[in-house]
Amino acid sequence: MTASKIGGVLAPVLTAFTNRAELDVERSLTHCQWLLQNGCDSLVVFGTTSEANSCSVSERSALLERLVAAGVHPERLIPGTGCCSLKDTIELTRQAVQLGCAGVLTLPPFYYKQISVDGLFQYFSQVIDTVNDERLRLYLYHIPPISMVPIPLDLVEKLLDRFPETLAGVKDSSGDWASMQSFLQFAEKGFDVFSGSEEFLLPLLQAGGAGTISAAANVIPGILQALYQGWKQPGSEQRQTAVKKISSVLRSKPLIPSLKAILAKARRDARWKECRPPLVALNLKEEEDLFEALDETQFDWHTSGPGPA
Amino acid sequence: MTASKIGGVLAPVLTAFTNRAELDVERSLTHCQWLLQNGCDSLVVFGTTSEANSCSVSERSALLERLVAAGVHPERLIPGTGCCSLKDTIELTRQAVQLGCAGVLTLPPFYYKQISVDGLFQYFSQVIDTVNDERLRLYLYHIPPISMVPIPLDLVEKLLDRFPETLAGVKDSSGDWASMQSFLQFAEKGFDVFSGSEEFLLPLLQAGGAGTISAAANVIPGILQALYQGWKQPGSEQRQTAVKKISSVLRSKPLIPSLKAILAKARRDARWKECRPPLVALNLKEEEDLFEALDETQFDWHTSGPGPA
Repeated sequence: MTASKIGGVLAPVLTAFTNRAELDVERSLTHCQWLLQNGCDSLVVFGTTSEANSCSVSERSALLERLVAAGVHPERLIPGTGCCSLKDTIELTRQAVQLGCAGVLTLPPFYYKQISVDGLFQYFSQVIDTVNDERLRLYLYHIPPISMVPIPLDLVEKLLDRFPETLAGVKDSSGDWASMQSFLQFAEKGFDVFSGSEEFLLPLLQAGGAGTISAAANVIPGILQALYQGWKQPGSEQRQTAVKKISSVLRSKPLIPSLKAILAKARRDARWKECRPPLVALNLKEEEDLFEALDETQFDWHTSGPGPA
Repeated sequence: MTASKIGGVLAPVLTAFTNRAELDVERSLTHCQWLLQNGCDSLVVFGTTSEANSCSVSERSALLERLVAAGVHPERLIPGTGCCSLKDTIELTRQAVQLGCAGVLTLPPFYYKQISVDGLFQYFSQVIDTVNDERLRLYLYHIPPISMVPIPLDLVEKLLDRFPETLAGVKDSSGDWASMQSFLQFAEKGFDVFSGSEEFLLPLLQAGGAGTISAAANVIPGILQALYQGWKQPGSEQRQTAVKKISSVLRSKPLIPSLKAILAKARRDARWKECRPPLVALNLKEEEDLFEALDETQFDWHTSGPGPA
């Protein structure tokens, strides 16, 4: 991994599937390349938005290898590596380091609930100690609405004490501004805070955060990059407000199928709608409602691809 | 798989680990053999109590193969096969069928929450259709306190309509008697209801259920078998009350580490205390409190092994 700082606009990359729910490696690759050319600073492959936990370890491992082989620079990749099983998390983390990825974003083990700080500390310590590579930079993934296992502040403190060079930051997808502020207390130790939603990008940058790892970046990378680049300039509040309008439309229906429906339209490729069960594509009525609500925000479809047919 | 009916007392088998959190296949095998010789009718290897989701697919697969190779009869095995990833669930389910296991116990995919019935139906349908083997008997695993993804009654109805021969029953670990009663509406279609806790064994049998898949069966298989065998005989209420007393002690501390602490003492083998992170062993104070509370129930340590040194 590299010492260069990660920040700005990152997409948890949507994964393409075939109509038989098989992973479509080549279309996933094309989407990664498009994102890097259209406003994303780095890519979190295998995030929540990527349906990563609906894929097997070997599928994830093969896709990552393909991305790097195809010329996606590993310094712009932060694979998600957190599984329920310590073994799987170690395997995926080790692969990411060995391929030269900039970092990894790691969920806590999420099957058992109400896990002690000690249990989480042992888990993350064993990942870091077993991978045992000074290039590793690990970002914690705090997404209590989905994982149901939060990242406690005590855990960050203990891990920073023990692994100051390795523990790189957090992605906070709690949707709770107070939570992001709490993580910022560790910023002076080089611990970077990313918001899990584009809605918080400007306030988080103003408060000392590093950027956003935003599902919406899959469809509006350019808009988010403009907000990021110009966050100290006049008009930034208005740009954040415009982003919030799009965000609230995206989150009015199941988020991942909605993003895929938008890609399908903007890329003129209906296959993008495919999800892997248990997620399912929007039905036609949901899709119509989504597109209508988006159009009401003056949404520019060319920001998500060549534009609708 | 076999057409013979599964029922009675089943243990979700504790998995042995080394002090480096490696799976200890041989001690896990010995425990399976002990359970079958001491009161368990069948074994759910890879349940919640087994820390199954803390193990990789290949670890689970290798352990199942070893059990069968060592002479544990597959007709007495119901492996847990439910993972977040459809691919993994299919792989483990297929292996179980091919080895001749009596059935599989399958969690819903548990990473995403608030999944639609349609999404769950597509998931389970793809598992059953892809494995495509008439020997498959699939039990649904309803454990909302941990998976946070319940098994809705609508789902059972749709799956029973589509796969009447394959859908075999449910393990209900909700701890909610009303929930178990709701599942019993499908009993006349040959859909078997197991309680996820020994506390409900007698009332569930009286209401038409099939038995229990009980964590406590790891340490008191004989006591539970006596309750099961004699459920129509005088004294059954008293036997159920005695079981409840033990249950409430076991559940007063983290359940899996508590069961392992009991095995460690009764088998005179401290290695049994080892858990894989994120679970951690009880500390000494917790262990003392547990043993003291157990002794107050007149607990017979010889029911869990040769007895303490």
